[in-house]
Amino acid sequence: MIAAMRYSKLFIPTLRDDPADAEVISHKLLLRAGYIRRVTSGVYDYLPLALRVLRKIEAVIRQELNRSGAQELLMPMVQPCELWEKSGRMEKYGPELLRFKDRHGHDSCLGPTHEEVISDLVARELRSYKQLPMNLYQIQTKFRDEIRPRFGLMRGREFIMKDGYSFHADDACLAAEYDNMFATYCRIFERFGLNFRPVEADCGSIGGNKTHEFHVLAESGEDLIAHCSGCDYAANVEKAVSERSVQAFEAATLQSVDTPNVTSAEDVAALLSLEPSALLKTVVYRVIGGENDATVIAACVRGDDQLQEIKLIHALAADGVEMATDEEVQSIGGVSGFIGPQGLSCKLLLDQSLNEAAGLVAGANKKDAHVTGLDTARDLDAASFADLRETRAGDDCLKCGSAIELSRGIEVGQVFALGTQYTESMEVMFQNQQGKRAVATMGCYGIGVSRLMAAVVEQCNDDSGISWPPELAPFQLGLITMGKSEEVMQASETIYQQLLDAGIDVLWDERKERPGVKFKDAELIGLPMQVVIGDRGLKAGLVEMGLRSGERNEVALTDIVNLVIDQLKTSGSTN
Amino acid sequence: MIAAMRYSKLFIPTLRDDPADAEVISHKLLLRAGYIRRVTSGVYDYLPLALRVLRKIEAVIRQELNRSGAQELLMPMVQPCELWEKSGRMEKYGPELLRFKDRHGHDSCLGPTHEEVISDLVARELRSYKQLPMNLYQIQTKFRDEIRPRFGLMRGREFIMKDGYSFHADDACLAAEYDNMFATYCRIFERFGLNFRPVEADCGSIGGNKTHEFHVLAESGEDLIAHCSGCDYAANVEKAVSERSVQAFEAATLQSVDTPNVTSAEDVAALLSLEPSALLKTVVYRVIGGENDATVIAACVRGDDQLQEIKLIHALAADGVEMATDEEVQSIGGVSGFIGPQGLSCKLLLDQSLNEAAGLVAGANKKDAHVTGLDTARDLDAASFADLRETRAGDDCLKCGSAIELSRGIEVGQVFALGTQYTESMEVMFQNQQGKRAVATMGCYGIGVSRLMAAVVEQCNDDSGISWPPELAPFQLGLITMGKSEEVMQASETIYQQLLDAGIDVLWDERKERPGVKFKDAELIGLPMQVVIGDRGLKAGLVEMGLRSGERNEVALTDIVNLVIDQLKTSGSTN
Repeated sequence: MIAAMRYSKLFIPTLRDDPADAEVISHKLLLRAGYIRRVTSGVYDYLPLALRVLRKIEAVIRQELNRSGAQELLMPMVQPCELWEKSGRMEKYGPELLRFKDRHGHDSCLGPTHEEVISDLVARELRSYKQLPMNLYQIQTKFRDEIRPRFGLMRGREFIMKDGYSFHADDACLAAEYDNMFATYCRIFERFGLNFRPVEADCGSIGGNKTHEFHVLAESGEDLIAHCSGCDYAANVEKAVSERSVQAFEAATLQSVDTPNVTSAEDVAALLSLEPSALLKTVVYRVIGGENDATVIAACVRGDDQLQEIKLIHALAADGVEMATDEEVQSIGGVSGFIGPQGLSCKLLLDQSLNEAAGLVAGANKKDAHVTGLDTARDLDAASFADLRETRAGDDCLKCGSAIELSRGIEVGQVFALGTQYTESMEVMFQNQQGKRAVATMGCYGIGVSRLMAAVVEQCNDDSGISWPPELAPFQLGLITMGKSEEVMQASETIYQQLLDAGIDVLWDERKERPGVKFKDAELIGLPMQVVIGDRGLKAGLVEMGLRSGERNEVALTDIVNLVIDQLKTSGSTN
Repeated sequence: MIAAMRYSKLFIPTLRDDPADAEVISHKLLLRAGYIRRVTSGVYDYLPLALRVLRKIEAVIRQELNRSGAQELLMPMVQPCELWEKSGRMEKYGPELLRFKDRHGHDSCLGPTHEEVISDLVARELRSYKQLPMNLYQIQTKFRDEIRPRFGLMRGREFIMKDGYSFHADDACLAAEYDNMFATYCRIFERFGLNFRPVEADCGSIGGNKTHEFHVLAESGEDLIAHCSGCDYAANVEKAVSERSVQAFEAATLQSVDTPNVTSAEDVAALLSLEPSALLKTVVYRVIGGENDATVIAACVRGDDQLQEIKLIHALAADGVEMATDEEVQSIGGVSGFIGPQGLSCKLLLDQSLNEAAGLVAGANKKDAHVTGLDTARDLDAASFADLRETRAGDDCLKCGSAIELSRGIEVGQVFALGTQYTESMEVMFQNQQGKRAVATMGCYGIGVSRLMAAVVEQCNDDSGISWPPELAPFQLGLITMGKSEEVMQASETIYQQLLDAGIDVLWDERKERPGVKFKDAELIGLPMQVVIGDRGLKAGLVEMGLRSGERNEVALTDIVNLVIDQLKTSGSTN
């Protein structure tokens, strides 16, 4: 990377105002500060400043992965569909997998991920357990045809990703590598100075048996994270478990009550002067995949809980669920708006907090009517129970009993213990120590490189612009020349050269612009440190040294280079 | 880049034998030495060794381009077709442009080049001449749906390219940047230690008014290069000009001769006991594009010359030509096998060496007949003359008169002065110094990064394997441990650590393999230097230091690290 740049020669198209179509702060700031430009929906140009940040992110990732024993390679973006047929994901992946035919009519796709390609490669080269374990990664441009790209780099269609894959002779070895990668990811995100959380997560469509997501905490995050205020427990709400004390209601006889036009749990509770937790909400779904495929089922949680669909999908061992239509509700004997668990001709699942619960209120499957005094043990025959409710703030931690808190997070990394999910279908076999053919076991590990850039901006900004952590700033230092006198230009050039000679990555703003413009741009761009040279100070042998945080000091011209070097060392900045 | 590696931990799947389907040496060796693996037609995995070489190639390119004032950015691989509609290339580019619809039905393509995207970007940000000149480049994966991918990385479909684009206020500034990039490319290829030639070339489908290709000279090259043995003139034969003295034949009267079943120029010459240069060969084409679009034309060269179609296309100002069918030949009054220039009802072009030539033999447009005594000035009315012949070895250089030589070359780079070819259609406008709106002028500059890796191997190899130039070797040094005694392993580990501490990029072969296997792999992989540590030498305090060229010396164990450092300095190797 070239260590030096003059502002007037760099392509940094800053904007005076927030772009109209940008919703989140990182999208706004990356556009305004001249880091990115949109090419088409969810597809961006990375301008020179952005590329410098991306390269620094990549360098840290590479350094830490190599240190942990992983090896870098590079796989293609265009993949033959036959590999996806072989793994069985061709149908499952859905329209996010962009498919096309090449000029010879071969079915191809743009790689959104590389489990298939790497498994195919390793399958062809792997002979013996002696070659294992193996951890291979790449940093590469991917394409996922998102239905609703948004938030700039946060949910783009084309994005840069680090994806890594490890292969092992047994699960113990995989578990050790999982821990190794988990620790490596923590080191990486710590070096970026991020407020992040590794959280337990659902394995989702990738498959496998254990996974953690790494979330950067930010208001704009698309994920909801439950974490304990007293211990290190943290999980995506899709997966989070917790306890809460629920008031036990008195057993009573089953009765019908008129609830004309009152359908929502809150309104029914208000009408009957009951706690919302006394209500039993019933939601009807159509199941996708698994042994209940295409059937309609009903699921119940308490009135003050939300049903967590991912948990329901797991309870059903399905691929997905979809809200039932009114016709489907009718088909099982339900009445939309007044659905209750009694008398439905379908599979019935209840949240475990409803096990042996009495005195409940539920829909009566009759227009404008509910039942009271429902007892799940007494009145519901074929119900099964599972953890279906979404964890709420204030729940008790299962590990330590402290209060659970909720935060929003941006997922920037994930580690998976896949097991033999892909290696079996892709025939990644080897001869084990006993001389027998065995299937390798596999892990995979991703970091969203371009999303990470946006996530950092979400955490590191103020009213004036971006405020990069020293390790990621596109330049370590901004040198700002104020005024056009020959003296000030000469002094600037001298310091510029001295900084370069000291190996410092400096952006010299030597433009013929007003000081106000230069300061505004410097703060918008977000370099962690500034050195300002002006006529007045120069006459007294002084220059100004400022930090992005706002701290400013006048220091002797003769000391400035050493002071900068010291400051960079303190902040851990590298070029 | 991690500075060190143990062989047993690296993914280097070397092969004992040449792969059956590899035709050229670079394809064979890159497969055999474990650098690449095929994923699908023209699409490869770059394994760790290859990626290291690619990164070194990229680093040199980046360094030299940044030094020359270019700036790096990164554009997307997926492009909206509307940009290609705007530039007018959507139709022209043909099926090599891979097109598809995304899930919302938007026409998209995989970028084979980025003139459209960069022009669109610059058009949106350019306001004033003060922002010019601007030179922006990227190093990126591209896709070109080649009809016949072959020779491994030489003509792949997915490949890595450096593509750069410059924008200027006027043509003088463009010309200066063209020279700057030309010089930069020479520096880059010189640093790789390549035997290369910059050659004048045809502008082809990219357009523009001046271009040079950079060719690595190699037997397997797909291009033919004419270069002067006496001066620096060099050009692709598609473009090369030259002179040759042609025997003048005596004028004679036009006569018909019987030539039953004799059609080729050579055979006719033999039959009539004439020099082949006395023959006039006529070829009939159908024109594509330009003012003669879809018409049939005839073109003539001497019997010992080849018609160069690119020159013909230029003489016609067409987009292309296609050999005429027998029906088309008949339609203009020609008789296939006995076509001659006389009496054809079509446009007639003759090579300039045929201007005012007499005593020629040509087809008579009658089965089994030729004419003799043809005089182009006397007998051909509406003929026009142009440079149509392909330069041959032994021709005279137009610049200095020395003999022209022909070599095969692999095109690894190209610089183009495009002028306003794209900036006009893409509306790249700015306010000039006079305050008026003006169209920017543009250059573009490409280097085939992955093809360059193959081209280097084509030049740098011997019977044992690859022989990397020091600047590009995946590792600077191979450290080979022979035997498994504790002493030899310990001494190896010590030297390994010392080399690492000296910042040397070393591959330590600590595998439990026979010496023969290790030496074979080391030569196949092609590291420029080896240090071999064995039991016997160690007892005498000696190790072996060898170069890939074959030179080997026993040196003192205590001197080895310093000797390696000296050798690396001498060879200009970097890590």
